Amino acid sequence: MERIADNIAKDFNISFHDENLLYEAFTHSSYVNEHRHLALQDNERLEFLGDAVLEVVISDYLFHTYKHWHEGKMTRLRAQIVCEPSLSSFAKECHFDQYIRLGKGEENMGGRQRPALLCDVFESFIGAVYLDQGIDAARAFINQVMITKLKEDAFSHVMDYKTSLQEELQKNGDVAIQYVLLSEEGPAHARKFDVEVRAFGKVLGKGQGQSKKVAEQSAAKNALESLL
Amino acid sequence: MERIADNIAKDFNISFHDENLLYEAFTHSSYVNEHRHLALQDNERLEFLGDAVLEVVISDYLFHTYKHWHEGKMTRLRAQIVCEPSLSSFAKECHFDQYIRLGKGEENMGGRQRPALLCDVFESFIGAVYLDQGIDAARAFINQVMITKLKEDAFSHVMDYKTSLQEELQKNGDVAIQYVLLSEEGPAHARKFDVEVRAFGKVLGKGQGQSKKVAEQSAAKNALESLL
Repeated sequence: MERIADNIAKDFNISFHDENLLYEAFTHSSYVNEHRHLALQDNERLEFLGDAVLEVVISDYLFHTYKHWHEGKMTRLRAQIVCEPSLSSFAKECHFDQYIRLGKGEENMGGRQRPALLCDVFESFIGAVYLDQGIDAARAFINQVMITKLKEDAFSHVMDYKTSLQEELQKNGDVAIQYVLLSEEGPAHARKFDVEVRAFGKVLGKGQGQSKKVAEQSAAKNALESLL
Repeated sequence: MERIADNIAKDFNISFHDENLLYEAFTHSSYVNEHRHLALQDNERLEFLGDAVLEVVISDYLFHTYKHWHEGKMTRLRAQIVCEPSLSSFAKECHFDQYIRLGKGEENMGGRQRPALLCDVFESFIGAVYLDQGIDAARAFINQVMITKLKEDAFSHVMDYKTSLQEELQKNGDVAIQYVLLSEEGPAHARKFDVEVRAFGKVLGKGQGQSKKVAEQSAAKNALESLL
């Protein structure tokens, strides 16, 4: 048991005052059900709390980072960041899958790799940090694990820049947006596409990629960066 | 304009460092659209933030208050507290309806009394307090305005105690729950019903009310209080 607390201290610089909270965060209800005599608490209450803490920390970050974005756009990006596929992959990066206390039945059914379960554990860990050390410690963890990725653009696979650009340009009425293929080069297995995006008779951005779709997203991203 | 800031200081003991935030919270998009030359910001970004702040403060309160409640039950109560009818009535109690800057069109269509609009303003005010003074000030406001009501049981009209009791009793399997009418007295316009609720061959609670429905809810509440 001590190993988990040590790993958490090493990886995230968080030393729990109450280590029971840490273990509660990693205790799935299936484990509690199979060990009733231990009278353990599963992680669902902590998940309830951590979910709300995560939401406010990410909202605060988006609010301060995208000062010119409207509410709808922040809400969409938040939904892309705080969603099961995203949180479950963060849980794995943090090695939380190794720490979970699972019942045998759930384990045999592959529960340890189940995205919904990993997502819950990620949120309950945040709930435990918040309870043990307050919102700033929870923010520091979220910052270290999630927001640095956001800054490195690791969310680009979930960001739809073409839709964002369209929304940005059409704020004051309809605008015709064109994606123009400038060139297409290279052998089939390493094709390279060059695209530019135009509106108002101007070139707004350029992008490259191994498919037309990727090159267009890249051009839209480039245009958004120069607009915002 | 100064009057609003004075009222807020008097009613909630909150003196804004940046009063622009306060006025932004009370600025509806319809007003911004009708006064484009003023280049105002509407309250929707603050609402995005305030919504998340409210969620975490209420979650924290429920977590600490109902230590034996499971996640599902806290989630249901949170949804009853943080919902449009509830928040719009708090907005009115705070006189926020009087402070909103609305466009003429929206005003003429009765926007000032529209629950969705009032609910948004309540959340954007919380967002403004959070930005200006941090989460503890937001918590103090929510505490003063909402949580004291919760303690006074002012949410009883939205609480479904019969369902809660059923969930509580059926945690470990099916249980037959009976509501028994003990008496029904008084003239038609002031009828009084006496009800008791039974399970496991025992009387769990008693309640009274001007209708059978109200008396049953009251009995369920009484039973819950003795169980939890």
